[in-house]
Amino acid sequence: MSGHLAIIGLGPGDAALLTPQASAALAAAEALFGYAPYLARVPEQAGQRRQGSDNREELARARAAIAEAAGGARVAVVSGGDAGVFGMAAAVFEAIEQGDAAWRSLAVEVIPGVSALLAAAARVGAPLGHDFCAISLSDNLKSWETVTRRLDAAAGAGFVIALYNPASRARPWQLGAAFEVLRRRLPGATPVVFASAVTRPDERVEITRLDDADPARADMRTLVLVGTEATRRIERPGAAPWLYTPRSAA
Amino acid sequence: MSGHLAIIGLGPGDAALLTPQASAALAAAEALFGYAPYLARVPEQAGQRRQGSDNREELARARAAIAEAAGGARVAVVSGGDAGVFGMAAAVFEAIEQGDAAWRSLAVEVIPGVSALLAAAARVGAPLGHDFCAISLSDNLKSWETVTRRLDAAAGAGFVIALYNPASRARPWQLGAAFEVLRRRLPGATPVVFASAVTRPDERVEITRLDDADPARADMRTLVLVGTEATRRIERPGAAPWLYTPRSAA
Repeated sequence: MSGHLAIIGLGPGDAALLTPQASAALAAAEALFGYAPYLARVPEQAGQRRQGSDNREELARARAAIAEAAGGARVAVVSGGDAGVFGMAAAVFEAIEQGDAAWRSLAVEVIPGVSALLAAAARVGAPLGHDFCAISLSDNLKSWETVTRRLDAAAGAGFVIALYNPASRARPWQLGAAFEVLRRRLPGATPVVFASAVTRPDERVEITRLDDADPARADMRTLVLVGTEATRRIERPGAAPWLYTPRSAA
Repeated sequence: MSGHLAIIGLGPGDAALLTPQASAALAAAEALFGYAPYLARVPEQAGQRRQGSDNREELARARAAIAEAAGGARVAVVSGGDAGVFGMAAAVFEAIEQGDAAWRSLAVEVIPGVSALLAAAARVGAPLGHDFCAISLSDNLKSWETVTRRLDAAAGAGFVIALYNPASRARPWQLGAAFEVLRRRLPGATPVVFASAVTRPDERVEITRLDDADPARADMRTLVLVGTEATRRIERPGAAPWLYTPRSAA
């Protein structure tokens, strides 16, 4: 099988955080597949085909990309951040497992990227400084009971928590419900960060506390970070505070 | 205060995974601080001072770098992977909080990088495909009881688990003990990945199962990934299998 499929993490948005490996793979592709707003970040290139699609069509997009690569083309599938973190990589491998046995002979390369989690954390200091977890609040593909069980376990065990997919028009109540679960485990003063469109022109980062955290501040482009009891807030004259979670956080 | 301190993630090792933002910040620095093997990855530059140090001197290194920046210099502190993930960022903010009040006026920038977690996952498919966590097995700064509590909570709640600092000469037994904790919660067939020196010339990646996982395979340069009951293994003719954790993992 002569085709090639690259699954590429574009990073948080700023081109200065796109790795040279990702840039090279994008330039080498004959066809690009992805959620339309992510594809829009990739510079246009003559002769390169593009197949943008909606956010909720991951598996169909994965199958189309694999089929094109299996036909002999050099294909790239793009995700924001890192494709392995709530991005396209899992959808591609799911499609391969369920698809034509010949697809298992395809050359597939996953090119990691700077995930939203890391970019958001960097903006406020070092909130991930110790053990942490990432949880998607989307209950499209798992039960809400699974989400709350993970939130409760993570907060109870002292993990810093990154919440992906906190809110969308179709999922308006989940973040509020998640904060309620966390408030049963964590002090009201626990730092919470709303990091939206990080490194992009409309970036907005707000630091608050768990008892003041307003779920309405989050949308599809927001990553929410919730500290632990140990997370420290360093006040600064005339500037936003820094947050960090000590390396010794028990 | 005129100095500037950049805390820079160098990525997993391959220069093609160093972001342009990190490259630019390294080139602009008058002085570099870091663990000697990480500093060795940065191209030499005339007139740039370098202060390499041992792995266990993070806080002293952070203080020296901050003091130099506070004196007016452009200083960079480097970490492998992402500096916010078990790297230098938390040590720098800890030193700032404990240090001279004037240090809070310093310009500090954290430049995110591709963490070892993401690079290791990319090598084997999409094992992080759903909710995941990262736990350091080092008990230098926290109790072993805290580590086991987190391992137990994470495995019980269905998180994919990335184990940082799994082993060193001074900490030979922790990974074996961690596998014992995980075996009480997870089936023996749960996929385990030993990913060493990922993207570097001596890279070695092994996929095994929890009941066969031999802690002796890990050293200081290894990241260990432990899947969940839902993590899938796609067998391939004549090649290592791909792993992925379905987006629906309950």
